[in-house]
Amino acid sequence: MNVATTSHDAASGVKPVRIGMFGLGTVGGGVAKLLLSRRDIISREIGRPIELTKVVVRDLHRTREVEVPAELLSTDPDAILEDPTIDIVVEVMGGIRPAGEWLRRAIRAGKHIVTANKDLMATEGVELLRLAAEHGVDISYEASVGGGIPLIGVFRQDLVANEVQSVHAIINGTTNYILTRMAQDGADYLPALAEAQALGYAEADPTNDVEAIDATYKLAILASLAFRTHVPPPQIFREGITKLRAIDFRMARELGYVIKLVAIGRRHKGADGTADSIELRVHPTLLPKHVLLAGVNGVYNAVHVQGDLVGDVLLYGRGAGSGPTSSSVVSDIIDIAHNVNAGVSNRVPFRVTDNLPLLAIDDVQSRYYVHLWVADQPGVLAQIAQVFGDHGISIASCIQKETDAKAGTAELVIVTHGAREAGMRDALHQFETLSAVRDLGSVLRIETP
Amino acid sequence: MNVATTSHDAASGVKPVRIGMFGLGTVGGGVAKLLLSRRDIISREIGRPIELTKVVVRDLHRTREVEVPAELLSTDPDAILEDPTIDIVVEVMGGIRPAGEWLRRAIRAGKHIVTANKDLMATEGVELLRLAAEHGVDISYEASVGGGIPLIGVFRQDLVANEVQSVHAIINGTTNYILTRMAQDGADYLPALAEAQALGYAEADPTNDVEAIDATYKLAILASLAFRTHVPPPQIFREGITKLRAIDFRMARELGYVIKLVAIGRRHKGADGTADSIELRVHPTLLPKHVLLAGVNGVYNAVHVQGDLVGDVLLYGRGAGSGPTSSSVVSDIIDIAHNVNAGVSNRVPFRVTDNLPLLAIDDVQSRYYVHLWVADQPGVLAQIAQVFGDHGISIASCIQKETDAKAGTAELVIVTHGAREAGMRDALHQFETLSAVRDLGSVLRIETP
Repeated sequence: MNVATTSHDAASGVKPVRIGMFGLGTVGGGVAKLLLSRRDIISREIGRPIELTKVVVRDLHRTREVEVPAELLSTDPDAILEDPTIDIVVEVMGGIRPAGEWLRRAIRAGKHIVTANKDLMATEGVELLRLAAEHGVDISYEASVGGGIPLIGVFRQDLVANEVQSVHAIINGTTNYILTRMAQDGADYLPALAEAQALGYAEADPTNDVEAIDATYKLAILASLAFRTHVPPPQIFREGITKLRAIDFRMARELGYVIKLVAIGRRHKGADGTADSIELRVHPTLLPKHVLLAGVNGVYNAVHVQGDLVGDVLLYGRGAGSGPTSSSVVSDIIDIAHNVNAGVSNRVPFRVTDNLPLLAIDDVQSRYYVHLWVADQPGVLAQIAQVFGDHGISIASCIQKETDAKAGTAELVIVTHGAREAGMRDALHQFETLSAVRDLGSVLRIETP
Repeated sequence: MNVATTSHDAASGVKPVRIGMFGLGTVGGGVAKLLLSRRDIISREIGRPIELTKVVVRDLHRTREVEVPAELLSTDPDAILEDPTIDIVVEVMGGIRPAGEWLRRAIRAGKHIVTANKDLMATEGVELLRLAAEHGVDISYEASVGGGIPLIGVFRQDLVANEVQSVHAIINGTTNYILTRMAQDGADYLPALAEAQALGYAEADPTNDVEAIDATYKLAILASLAFRTHVPPPQIFREGITKLRAIDFRMARELGYVIKLVAIGRRHKGADGTADSIELRVHPTLLPKHVLLAGVNGVYNAVHVQGDLVGDVLLYGRGAGSGPTSSSVVSDIIDIAHNVNAGVSNRVPFRVTDNLPLLAIDDVQSRYYVHLWVADQPGVLAQIAQVFGDHGISIASCIQKETDAKAGTAELVIVTHGAREAGMRDALHQFETLSAVRDLGSVLRIETP
């Protein structure tokens, strides 16, 4: 890549918008490349020259895909934080420390913030936004969820007249890639993970993705937008994808479902005079194959929103990668530059004011798919049905799949009507005490967004 | 519906944001209902009381679903245009005249505009936006395309860092409903149209929808956003859905396609030193059944955008109706109210600056599906293939479907590789002169978004 490095300001006499960036990894490299190679286009868009003034990195001498002029690089955060000419700080280094502290210093110094940092925004976002409002600066974080998919602006502006009823989101590309491979090739989890790792879609230690931790951070951000309620990510119920087996995908397909890792947020209307509450959870989920979200494959992400006015809205695109993420970062930079030009900040106030209580997972209602092996003998199905009935769980359909004559077992797939999570958990505990239940396979929740 | 009509301003002492509205039909009724019944929520959002000050209607005494206090109604446009206290004019009356003239007067009087009027924005939008910029007021028109789907803001802000490569849109709910019924029930066009009319999805005179006129207006607006180029809707190539037959849907399904009315916009990169050009067209289109757009059914709309950074993005939702459309109108009102509060206008400049030339339809390349009945005799296929070859059209696959022994005819379905539109038209003309071609059935274009 070959980019010009001369400055506009001297020539035009117009004060440029100056950018300081923390981080020059995949996303930072993409942003730097855009700011340097499309400087003319971006400058024309904002009506003033844009200038990448300083990039703070950990290692000055690392080889990088993008050629950033050496004089722009520094290892000292003060090169940005103490430079009063820098208008906008772009934070693409990730992690909560030291990013949070640096951004607080930047805010206090009157600098606007563009960040792609989902961990930080999910954890300390409300505090940062409040601090920014106090100091008359903006924080934009479109890139923190869903890569290039327009989400933050959509919730804050386009859907603002709605009361959001629910959000169903496929927001982790790594797991969606693995699940897509398992569904399409009948692969088991470990080979599918290995393939994702080989392609660079999964990290060497995939825990953060496959245990749905990443998705809880993103759901926390979506919930703050959709329900105006901050929930710390560790409070969000999560189940990972590591226990899914090839047979679950075959069964799901036969029943007309696909399996996706879905982040679910739902508003429950309070009874007369009581406040609404919200339900938040992330887990492998059976989706009817005809719903649009079921067709979201590979590394793609999608968010399905239900608003009381707008009805169903779905937003789909690439949830990660240099191109999509830097598309969002640069659009945030341009948006803030418009504000700088107009001399405004916090034009659209961000209100996390509703503080709806989080429904305990025990009280969440769901339909379930239960797959188990039982003794192939008379009366077993009656026993199973009795346990479900005792816990208030109604069976919607039941398929006895095949009998293994040698082992004397039969395979049962039961789909339930809506049941309380606590009731299902108790029923499953009781199955473990039944001698007729030989193996409790998968228990998966079913959703129809 | 029962709504309070007391005013906030006296109590709070804060100057309210005053709204004047032209039109009180389906959309206007929805907007009025929201402004009256959610006044507290909207006022809290914008930080100032909002007030529906005046609604100009044609007939004061018509029965309406929404109860608007009689003193708000007037038949005189000057009740809004000459009232200096009105900040925002909401235009939901439709049509180019007199709406355009009234909005020009409102702009000159310093009033901001929110409009759902696609005909006006597709035809005179560029002029209105220029006039608004001159007078320091904003025009928002999210509701003019795609009902409640976030589109305008997405193009103007979220995707602004991208060079948009293509747009594929299902943007007419009426035709999508009809085509969905034809696909799902094997219905012919006329019964499906009658059903859509009975349900209120199609008008008594459906021409505007079924001849794809409505879709050309919406595509013109999308093109102005995606390619920054204004094209008058009558210059956009269009083909309606009235000639589609049940058999086309059966054939399409067998070949792995669905049939949708798709509005297509595509950028063609200029060769060295020459400008880019754009291709715009709306016609029934075969889409591979696995693409997301193929799953958009019923009255739903969706827009699939390809940007050079972001890759594929799809935006899906209800394209019409009181709820979705008033969701967009009210979000536009709130956004402008934020600008009024901040004392800014034209914060995000709208640039229709690129003026890319429109590619002649003759020069558009497409793959084709050609369905025809031929004489069941030796050498006919060779004749057909020869004609295609003479016009530079390469056959990708060919299926001889069945033979009607009594009539002595065979049914041929040919799928071509990419071919110039002019070449295909000439080939089809030549088929008409061939005695072996008994009936030229449907010729449909194929796209893979």
